[in-house]
Formats: sequence, structure tokens, C-alpha cells
Amino acid sequence: MQIGIAQINSVIGDFPSNVKRILAAYRECLDAGADLVVTPELSLVGYPPRDLVFKSQFVSKCLQALDYLAGEIREVPLLVGYVDHHHPSHPGKPFRNAVAWLEQGNIQHRIWKTLLPTYDVFDERRYFEPGDSSVPISWNGHRIGVTICEDIWTEDYLQRPFYDRDPVEELTAKGIDLLLNLSASPFHLGKPLLRRAMIGGIGRKAKVPVIYCNSVGANDQLVFDGHSLVTGSNGRITTQLPGFVESCSVIDPFRVVENDAPLGSCDAEQLYHALVLGVRDYVTKCGFSSVCLGLSGGIDSALTATIAAAALGPANVCGLTMPSPYSSRGSVDDSFALAENLGIRCDEVPIRNAFEAIKATLQPVFEGKPEDVTEENMQARLRGLILMALSNKENHLLLTTGNKSELAVGYCTIYGDMCGGLAVISDLPKVRVYEISRWINREREIIPWNTINKPPSAELRPDQKDQDTLPPYEILDGILELYVENQLAADEIISRGFDESTVRWVQRRVDLNEWKRHQAAPGLRVTSKAFGIGRRMPIVQRFVG
Amino acid sequence: MQIGIAQINSVIGDFPSNVKRILAAYRECLDAGADLVVTPELSLVGYPPRDLVFKSQFVSKCLQALDYLAGEIREVPLLVGYVDHHHPSHPGKPFRNAVAWLEQGNIQHRIWKTLLPTYDVFDERRYFEPGDSSVPISWNGHRIGVTICEDIWTEDYLQRPFYDRDPVEELTAKGIDLLLNLSASPFHLGKPLLRRAMIGGIGRKAKVPVIYCNSVGANDQLVFDGHSLVTGSNGRITTQLPGFVESCSVIDPFRVVENDAPLGSCDAEQLYHALVLGVRDYVTKCGFSSVCLGLSGGIDSALTATIAAAALGPANVCGLTMPSPYSSRGSVDDSFALAENLGIRCDEVPIRNAFEAIKATLQPVFEGKPEDVTEENMQARLRGLILMALSNKENHLLLTTGNKSELAVGYCTIYGDMCGGLAVISDLPKVRVYEISRWINREREIIPWNTINKPPSAELRPDQKDQDTLPPYEILDGILELYVENQLAADEIISRGFDESTVRWVQRRVDLNEWKRHQAAPGLRVTSKAFGIGRRMPIVQRFVG
Repeated sequence: MQIGIAQINSVIGDFPSNVKRILAAYRECLDAGADLVVTPELSLVGYPPRDLVFKSQFVSKCLQALDYLAGEIREVPLLVGYVDHHHPSHPGKPFRNAVAWLEQGNIQHRIWKTLLPTYDVFDERRYFEPGDSSVPISWNGHRIGVTICEDIWTEDYLQRPFYDRDPVEELTAKGIDLLLNLSASPFHLGKPLLRRAMIGGIGRKAKVPVIYCNSVGANDQLVFDGHSLVTGSNGRITTQLPGFVESCSVIDPFRVVENDAPLGSCDAEQLYHALVLGVRDYVTKCGFSSVCLGLSGGIDSALTATIAAAALGPANVCGLTMPSPYSSRGSVDDSFALAENLGIRCDEVPIRNAFEAIKATLQPVFEGKPEDVTEENMQARLRGLILMALSNKENHLLLTTGNKSELAVGYCTIYGDMCGGLAVISDLPKVRVYEISRWINREREIIPWNTINKPPSAELRPDQKDQDTLPPYEILDGILELYVENQLAADEIISRGFDESTVRWVQRRVDLNEWKRHQAAPGLRVTSKAFGIGRRMPIVQRFVG
Repeated sequence: MQIGIAQINSVIGDFPSNVKRILAAYRECLDAGADLVVTPELSLVGYPPRDLVFKSQFVSKCLQALDYLAGEIREVPLLVGYVDHHHPSHPGKPFRNAVAWLEQGNIQHRIWKTLLPTYDVFDERRYFEPGDSSVPISWNGHRIGVTICEDIWTEDYLQRPFYDRDPVEELTAKGIDLLLNLSASPFHLGKPLLRRAMIGGIGRKAKVPVIYCNSVGANDQLVFDGHSLVTGSNGRITTQLPGFVESCSVIDPFRVVENDAPLGSCDAEQLYHALVLGVRDYVTKCGFSSVCLGLSGGIDSALTATIAAAALGPANVCGLTMPSPYSSRGSVDDSFALAENLGIRCDEVPIRNAFEAIKATLQPVFEGKPEDVTEENMQARLRGLILMALSNKENHLLLTTGNKSELAVGYCTIYGDMCGGLAVISDLPKVRVYEISRWINREREIIPWNTINKPPSAELRPDQKDQDTLPPYEILDGILELYVENQLAADEIISRGFDESTVRWVQRRVDLNEWKRHQAAPGLRVTSKAFGIGRRMPIVQRFVG
């Protein structure tokens, strides 16, 4: 038996184009000899459709597309993910997260997702009613278990035992010789390795091959990394599809190997490819073809520009350097050097005159009050205004360049450097920004070494350095990982050896800046806990701990 | 028997102050002769705590506060809402949405919420595991059913039959003579009437008195309106506590009346009080004491200023009028007239010079390109920059003044007039803005009649009027209600008699502007479907329907 794995990139709600994409992948697999073809979870819909499913005609249009697709399928079955109605008068949620087994022009089987993740970035119980039985499908002398994403996430790989059901055990108890899983499993650092371990364990325990077909592509904050897998009945990984690109592969699930196929990429490489894919899909799926961004001469904007150039081509990236009286000439030179290395356009727009005019405008109201952070923010906001003007005038999507460390403690200006439609690196702690930048320069200088090696500065007042305000980034990022990703209390972080006053300062700053993050651009999620849809904090609250 | 209803306003995560508030209300009820005192859902915690519950010490600190509270209670029981742990190794979510029955220094009973809303603004299955049995509590010769909020929401009052349990039926079947409900039920227009009908129906069906204790106060986007209720065993409303204020009342639940106590407020009045409470709580719970806002001479900023002055006192509201060359003198005069009527400060900061300086700065980059919407947005963003500078310099929270109709179709400038920490009227359709403004002027002119009567204009180019771009507001708001609140497809809206090209234009504009709303300030929810936490649309999507 040969199984086609169609690791495809669907666009949310675009049923006509998703049908085309699925059929193209199906035919590619047929040509390569597939006897059955699998696509990712909700492949017909795009994941996650969120509240679009509540639109009165969303699910009926999905079902029309499914019928059309079924009509195109003959003897080689196609498994496709879609949204179905739940019975209108039965208790529960209105929809099913479903898989259709298409064969001979018909929907032969419908499978409902059983375990519905409702944590982190997932909200499936908002929409879906779980399936209540898992039944093997008999086909061609085989008994096949079909599962959807979370259905195979065993409690060892979850934060706690969330479910009182285990679809894999149910299927195994009923007898299967092959397990299929259709997934839309978003990337974060460490996730590809985690999945390899989990799926290998399932194969070993159930003693059957497992075919794991994951989605690829980015939808808003989520990047789906592909990395589809096949494990043999001994749990060894026989095939891994590439990460971060669409790919079709036809494999024999019953092949057994002694050593796992390699993952073959380091952290920096995975992060880089995740962000490149995230930018490309956000920009192009929105209908834009080019982006603009401010180049400060610092490392964050340099890395963002590098990622954008890789995602869209250098001709589609416009940099703008906007020196103020507090900017060093070196910053402007570094920006031009970067632009030259990348082959992107870079214009220079000095902000001194406009800044002075705004200060003069406010002088009657501010009379007698000393300059303070207000004027620093005014510079950042003037730059944001100029970048948005460029975006409006030339129809670029503006990228914002802040990193996670800054966003965490609010070391950024709302409506200033936070302006932009997409926050490319807002889930990268600053130390990762450096790590990836060095990885990008591994063969030749792309990001100017001067940008990487100089002390970071916002250049909003004379001789300002980030470390005048912030703890060293190694320490800040260490505290933030414990406080934001692991959700530890300050006392617990201090007990791990961090300085008490630093920890309490960081805690207070993170809590106080929830309001800024509420208005932040969507950011590409690459860690286990990004600011964004997976972390939902009240703004107005007074808990300290 | 006399029951004390403590309709209180808790602060999320502030256990010490919530304990104080609960004890003060408890003692007030004792003094008035209460035999038992009820507080709202999660009264010890504030609703909704959202992801704060995942912080490693949140629930343990909540339990410590509960123990302290229990120690203060003697023979008169107190019912208090809190978050409990679920058993760490039992399958399911980690927490319970719980009520503790405190008596004689101890926690005598713990009740778990059974029906966990996971729709609209609610995410309870993200956090909580449902209770699996509803058991009456015997006390003082009575059998009392204790329920938590959603537990009494019968399927006739929900969008569909969500649940396969009915706690009220379970309790009634086991025999009760009194039903208590602890709620945190957020306001939207029509909700107070809906609750009266539903609770009356429960009393009639179960033939027992119902005590409904609702939370009051605002937390982020949600405004809790109080309006706690008591119905007799004939389903008639014997008592209704006031809306939008804290209140304690001690009542005899077995009293029966023949006519319902009146609700006693019209739509405009309810909306006004909801927004006043929303502003007051957002601003003061955040630790601010004053606000600033831009006054354009238009009705949106005038209504926002009026609400702010009522919420915080006129001395704590700063208006700024920022005329451009396109502003009429009338707009400035109307702003000053409003400020005088309200007794608030108003400064005038003309933006012409700064605007010209910014245009000159961009001239080398924009050379040869005609003026367009870019320059309109630049004016709005310059005003946003100036308002944020005032906010920073004088430590005001900036209020943003856009209405729901504008926000829906993107007739607003991101980082411009959308700047601000709270969007006061962003859930008010424009026709409601007029309705409430006229209601405010019912006895004397507060909002200048000229502001109400002139054609609305953004004044961003010569002689601009809103209706150059938008359909008449009566039509726009009619379409938006069907498209956004009722989630109908364009075809369905057209079939109700709206012009096809107008409907498709509105649909496209609503869909295209999801990205702007993603970065919008939190807005106070007052309709059945606000932009905000209750409506979760993907930004990148291509569904049309």
C-alpha cells in the first residue's frame, strides 16, 4: 500500500482555492502511485476559521465545496478536513471538526474529532461538539484508524490530563493495522522534536504504523511547520516531510527502519524559516505584495528586514531611516549597509524639523514643564506617522520590528515603533534575535557586524543605551521565560537565584504593560507562550504574584 | 427568613480589597437583619480572571483569602464565589468555578458551576471543569438550591441547546424550597429584560422563590449591571436592585406580589449608565484619576466627554481642540461650548504648522505624487500624537471617541483618532450616539444642539461630509446590525430590502478592516455582539458570504 501525504497550505475561508490546492496535491500523489491520500486537519477550510464558522452561510458553503470535491474523486480515496453541522436540536455546540473519506464520487465516511483542545491558542469547544466513538474503517483488507490532531496527544505530552477519552486506545482495542492523523499543529520552538517523540511512542505502543499529515503555512499569529511524519510499527521515523514548505510525498507505511530519519535543523534555522513563512503568508494572503519598515541601525529592524527580504524578495521591501538629532551617524550608515547587503531600497528622512514643529505646537500647553519621556515618545510616534504615510502612499504593509523582551516590559512606544500590520519578531526574546542574526551571517555578512556588536540603543536621548533602563538581556530574558512562559510567581523566580529587585521590577513592568500589548500588531508565535491569542490576560487587575 | 443580597463590585485579582468589600457588605446585611448573605459569582476574585488563574500562585492565594474570610463568619452564612483547584490527577481542566458556603468559621459546602459558557465573551471551558451533580443544601429547615450564573440559563434563552444537563431541574427533582443564583452576567442592551423573563419563568416552573445576585462594575470590556432580582414562587418579581451601582438589600424571599417590580429605565438611560460605569471603573481600577480626549466639535467626542465628566467629575477631564486648515470655526466654538456646559478644561492647539512641517519632511519621498487619503490620515495621526503627548506629560488616560459604525467599516484612522486606552462608545452604532445625546439634553442643553444637528464630518479635507463616503447612518447601522450582530450573509441582508451594492460595500469594508480592530483600544460592550473579546475573527481570510 502506498499513502500520499499532501502537506498543503490552505487559505482560511477560501473554499474555491483550497479545493484547487487539494485536487492538485491529490493528483500529484496519484501520479506518484498513491492508493490513498491524506490532507491536514480542516484542509478545505484553513485552520483556525475562528468565528467565521458562525456566519450564516459559512458551513453550508464548506459542505458545497466538499460535495464538489467528492465528485472529483474516483477509486483512490481522499481524506479531507472540513467543518460539519452538528444536529440542530441535539445538545451541544453547533459544529463538528470533521474528516471526510471521499471515494467513488461520494463521502464514504465522516469522522468527528474527539479531543477538542481549549487551551493556549485553541478554542475548539467554542465551536465544536466532540465525536463520541472512534471506529476503525475497513478498506482494502486493512483496518484504519483515522484521528484528528489532538486525538493523538496523549497526556504525557499535555500540561495535565485534560481528557477522559483516549481515541488511540479505543481504536487499538477495536483492532487497527494503520493509524492516520490529520493535523493543524502550530509551530513553536521544540514542537517538531516533541511530535517526533510522541508519534514514535504511539507507533511503538499501538504496534502500527502512524501517518501524521500536518498543515503548513501561516494564518495570522500561527505558523504551521509541516514536518509531517511517518513512523513504522516499531515507532521509528521512516519519513519526515520538509519543514515550512508545501510538499507531497508517497510512502509505504509498512516499511520499517532501524534509525529515525533526522529532523535536521537547529533552533535558529527553524525560527528563521518559521518567521519567513509567517511574513510571506501574512502579507500575500492579505493581498499585499510589498512591505516597508523603519531601519534604526539596530539589530531588531535589521533582522526583520532580512526576514522580509527572504519572504518577499528584496525588490518588495522598502526601508526608511529617520535620524533625529540623537541618532548617531553610524546608525544611518549601518542601515544603508544592511540595505545594500540585502538589495533593498532605503530612503533617509530626517525628523528634526518636524519634531521641532510639533514641540513648538505643544509649547503653549506644556509651558514650564521639563522635557521627559513625553518627548522620547513623540519622536517614536513621529517616525510611526511617517512610516504609515509611506505605507498609505505606496501601498506597502508596514512591518513593526519590536522583540519580545521589549514588548514584555513595555520598552516600546505605542502608536510609535509599535505601528505596523504585523509584528515579525515580537515573540523572539532579544537573545534569540542575536542568535538568529549570527546564524544568518554564518557564511557572509548580511546584517552588518557593527549592528550586532554595538550596545543596543533606542537613540531617543543623548547617549541612551537600553541597559540604562533594562537589566542585561540575558538576565531579563531568563526572568521573562520563567514569568511569562512558565507563569511562575516572583518568589519562585527569585528562589532560582535571580536578584529580587530586578525580578519585581520585571514583574511590575510586564503586568503594567498589558494595555499596550492589547493594541499591539499580531505577532508570529514561535515560543510556547507568545503575547497574543494564546495568552489572555485582563488589563484591569491587581494580582501580584 | 431574610436574605441579604450583596450586589458588589470586585476588582480582578485584588483578594485583600475584595475580602474587605465582601465583609463590609456582609455586615451591612447583618445590620439589616439578614439570616444568610449572597454575593455574586467569583466575588472574591472578580470576573473574569482569564489567564491569571494559570499563574502559579493565583488559586492558592485565592484559597488563602477564602480561609481568612471564613474565619470572619459566624452563625449567619455567607455565600462567596471563588476559584478552586480541580484534583491534579483527575482528567479535565485544572480549576473549578466555585461557591463556598461559609458558616461558623468554616467552609461548610463547596458548590461547582455545572454549565460552563464557552461562547461569545465567555471562555470557561478553557479553565474550569464542570460539577457533575447538583445537590440541595439543607439549612434551618429549608432545602436550598445553589447555582452559579449559566446554571440557570435554560435553552429557551440561549442561541441553541448547548448543554445536556439542567441543574435547576436536577435540584427541583431532589426537592428545594428556594433557589439561589450567584451571577456575573455582563450587560448588553436587552439583557436586563431578558433576565427578568427567564428568572420569572424559572420561579414559575420550579414553584420556588429565586434569588438572583448579580455582579456590578466594569472589568475591561465587560460592564456588569447589577439589577439583581428576587422572584416569588409565582414567578413575579418582588424586588429588583438598582442598575449600575453597588447595593445591599435584605429581603424575604417568600413574599409574593401580584405585579412585577418595574425595570424602570429606557434604552438610552441604560446605555448611558453602563458607559459611565465602564469609564469610571476602567480608569480608576487602572490607577488613573483623570482623562484627556480630543474634541472635534462632533457628536462622538461630545458624548464621550459627557460620559467621562459624569464618571470622573468635570475637573478630571481635559479636552483638546486641534483645528486644521480644514476645520470650521464652528467646530472649535462647539467644543468650547461643550466644555463650558460640562465644566471641563479645553485647550486649543492648532496643527497647521506641524502638519506642514511633516509634509515638507516627506516631500522628497513623495515628490510628484498627488495628495490623497495619506494626508488625511497624517492629520488624524498628528492629532493622536499630540493627545498622547498630553496624556504622557500630565498623566491622563486618553479616551478614544470612535463609534461602532465607523469602526465597523474602518472609517477611522489607526494610530490617529483610534489612539487611546479605552474606546468609550465603540460599541454604540451612530444612531444610538444621537439617541443618547438627545436623552442627555432632555432637560437642558449639555451637548450643544449645533453639534447634534449639523451633518457629521471628519473635516480632513475641504467641505468633507461623512455621507460623501458612507451610506446614511440609518441604513449603515441597519446593515451592520444584520451583518455583525446577527451574522447574516449579504444575500440574506439584500433579501430584506437593502440595496445590493450598499450591502456588498459594507460587507467588504467590515471584512477588510479586521486588522484595524485587532489593534483597537478595548471598548465597552453594550450590544449583543461588540467588536472585541466576544467576536474573534481571523484577519487573514477570504470568505465572502
